[in-house]
Amino acid sequence: MLNFDFYNPTHILFGQGRIADLNKVIPAEAHVMLLYGGGSIKQNGVFDEVVSALGTRKFTEFTGIEPNPSYETLMKAVEVVKQGGIDFLLAVGGGSVIDGTKFIAAAALFEGDDPWAILEKRGNNITQALPFGSVLTLPATGSEMNSGSVVTRKSMKAKMAFSSRYCYPKFSVLDPTKTYSLPVRQVGNGAVDAFVHVMEQYMTYPVNSPVQDRFAEGLLLTLIEEGPKALAEPENYDVRANLMWCATMALNGLIATGVPQDWATHMIGHELTALHGIDHAQTLAIILPSMLRVRKEAKRAKLLQYADRVWNLRDGDEDTRIDAAITRTQDFFEQMGVKTRLSDYALDASHISPILSALETHRMVALGEKRDVTLSISQQVLEMSL
Amino acid sequence: MLNFDFYNPTHILFGQGRIADLNKVIPAEAHVMLLYGGGSIKQNGVFDEVVSALGTRKFTEFTGIEPNPSYETLMKAVEVVKQGGIDFLLAVGGGSVIDGTKFIAAAALFEGDDPWAILEKRGNNITQALPFGSVLTLPATGSEMNSGSVVTRKSMKAKMAFSSRYCYPKFSVLDPTKTYSLPVRQVGNGAVDAFVHVMEQYMTYPVNSPVQDRFAEGLLLTLIEEGPKALAEPENYDVRANLMWCATMALNGLIATGVPQDWATHMIGHELTALHGIDHAQTLAIILPSMLRVRKEAKRAKLLQYADRVWNLRDGDEDTRIDAAITRTQDFFEQMGVKTRLSDYALDASHISPILSALETHRMVALGEKRDVTLSISQQVLEMSL
Repeated sequence: MLNFDFYNPTHILFGQGRIADLNKVIPAEAHVMLLYGGGSIKQNGVFDEVVSALGTRKFTEFTGIEPNPSYETLMKAVEVVKQGGIDFLLAVGGGSVIDGTKFIAAAALFEGDDPWAILEKRGNNITQALPFGSVLTLPATGSEMNSGSVVTRKSMKAKMAFSSRYCYPKFSVLDPTKTYSLPVRQVGNGAVDAFVHVMEQYMTYPVNSPVQDRFAEGLLLTLIEEGPKALAEPENYDVRANLMWCATMALNGLIATGVPQDWATHMIGHELTALHGIDHAQTLAIILPSMLRVRKEAKRAKLLQYADRVWNLRDGDEDTRIDAAITRTQDFFEQMGVKTRLSDYALDASHISPILSALETHRMVALGEKRDVTLSISQQVLEMSL
Repeated sequence: MLNFDFYNPTHILFGQGRIADLNKVIPAEAHVMLLYGGGSIKQNGVFDEVVSALGTRKFTEFTGIEPNPSYETLMKAVEVVKQGGIDFLLAVGGGSVIDGTKFIAAAALFEGDDPWAILEKRGNNITQALPFGSVLTLPATGSEMNSGSVVTRKSMKAKMAFSSRYCYPKFSVLDPTKTYSLPVRQVGNGAVDAFVHVMEQYMTYPVNSPVQDRFAEGLLLTLIEEGPKALAEPENYDVRANLMWCATMALNGLIATGVPQDWATHMIGHELTALHGIDHAQTLAIILPSMLRVRKEAKRAKLLQYADRVWNLRDGDEDTRIDAAITRTQDFFEQMGVKTRLSDYALDASHISPILSALETHRMVALGEKRDVTLSISQQVLEMSL
């Protein structure tokens, strides 16, 4: 096991009816900025429940935080906050709204000239942030219980990540019933996103970390079991609850303790989203299977463990079991309704070169747990994903 | 899954050499009370490393916190703190030292007349506590990453628990190399303690919580694998690291999320310690196997899952598999050098009645996940453990 730090102070309020408890966890005198995306929370009752829980607190709405939240949009919220008065942010939505709120919380108190520096320095220059909490409506990114955020600057076609210990939500409310009305596409994307988060922290090389491995495998097994059920039985409470808890656990730092991490799939995926607007989870579903095939030797020991423990593949030689495990993984993504080929998204070989250029521009030229995923390897992965 | 709250802000610093990082996590101007038990930390180098990390900070030693820390001893430390100056507590030791430090941290700022009220109210009357951290030298209780504490009042032969959200350590340093020199008895006790902590949260009845179940099973499997290795290879770093992380994860609130909890074994065990001075883990090893046998029907579904997933028992009828799983559990405790019968500790049938009386005095008359472990059931369990 590698040395590590673990710190995660987010208070989780989980279960049906918990939105009402916002009244207990938001300061009574707070002036709240209520941040959300489109209008779905006004249709499914979440908005009304939140407003009811806020009681007599003053609140200001900020709406229109888009998927892959943009710097341009978020800076508008920063300006409103800087006008004064607002002292608590409440994100109501999925990972994009929460990620955006993290940036707003940090940028509003940022002491440099230009908050874009937060992205350029990956958050290392953050020294304070406004307190914020979240009401999660889309289990997927884990943003509700971590300190990370990804922001896109449209004008630069750049999708960049930052994190800071000042950017943990004070609390997050996870009510599984609020996910019943999610569109099928978002349910599929959410399960795939959580699955690939686990894989980025698990599918590397062995460091004798049996607890972390078993936790990761427990999450993968549960996602495989519960994901399809969520599509078939959208109002099954336990299925929704299990998926929600999986997605949070997948990226709250726990399974990352003491192990190497990969994240090459994510870095290539970010370029696909920035250049072509493909959903984040879709990019992961395109890249991961090819990444595993291309990097089979480096990941052999963990791929064999994965084949055994997650997919019950124990017959045949090593390569047969590994290949079958990767195929099952890809099939699972397809089963969740997430297509796994570049051609499914109308991209062909001519699109690969610009993706590689973007990776180079963003200095993503030595990715993966051993920093040996060069541009040439990324090219192989993309070609295999055509 | 049941509704739940999860909150755990303790910062874990894990790995070889991390004691030096105390310098980063204790305020630079702090006047530290350094709390420990006997003198083992002066023999194994931990004391010197801690003092070196404290640098120029002023510190005051408080030594002699005993196993099952006593109210009488802890109140002496409270008096020292109340004399002023000390503003940070640093526990260096195992669960007893950390539990004791939690009580001191709360009692020093307690506003009532008599800090014993903290135990009587189980911590619900705590409104503040001095900040404190820990350097863990004995993986077992999980106290390094939770808000609970157990204190014994010798004069009353009472062993009582409290918890408070103000009583999380600010940080805990977990350096596996500092456990190399532990006596065999403490290694065995530690693994059994962690194992039974998991069982108290896992071995109840199904509530459709696959993530929590798999996390719990992952901890049990790892303890079974690594525990005996720690006895055979005391200086195997990975073994010690895995045991240490298991013990912390076993009782930091994570596997308790959304599931019923038992704790009847602990409550009966506490009386055995209070009346007869038997080590905490020894009491658990005595009680748990009989508790599982007596309550087999109530726990049938989870016992079958446990037999399958933890002990790979898939042959024979249900009762055969359950009985074998309980026998394996008891054998594991014995393998760790922890005896599992009252008679191993020179207790016989004549000692049962006073234990039941103590349970009654402490209102422990409706224990377990369904509050149906009456005194009569406890009596059956004790008789089966003779």
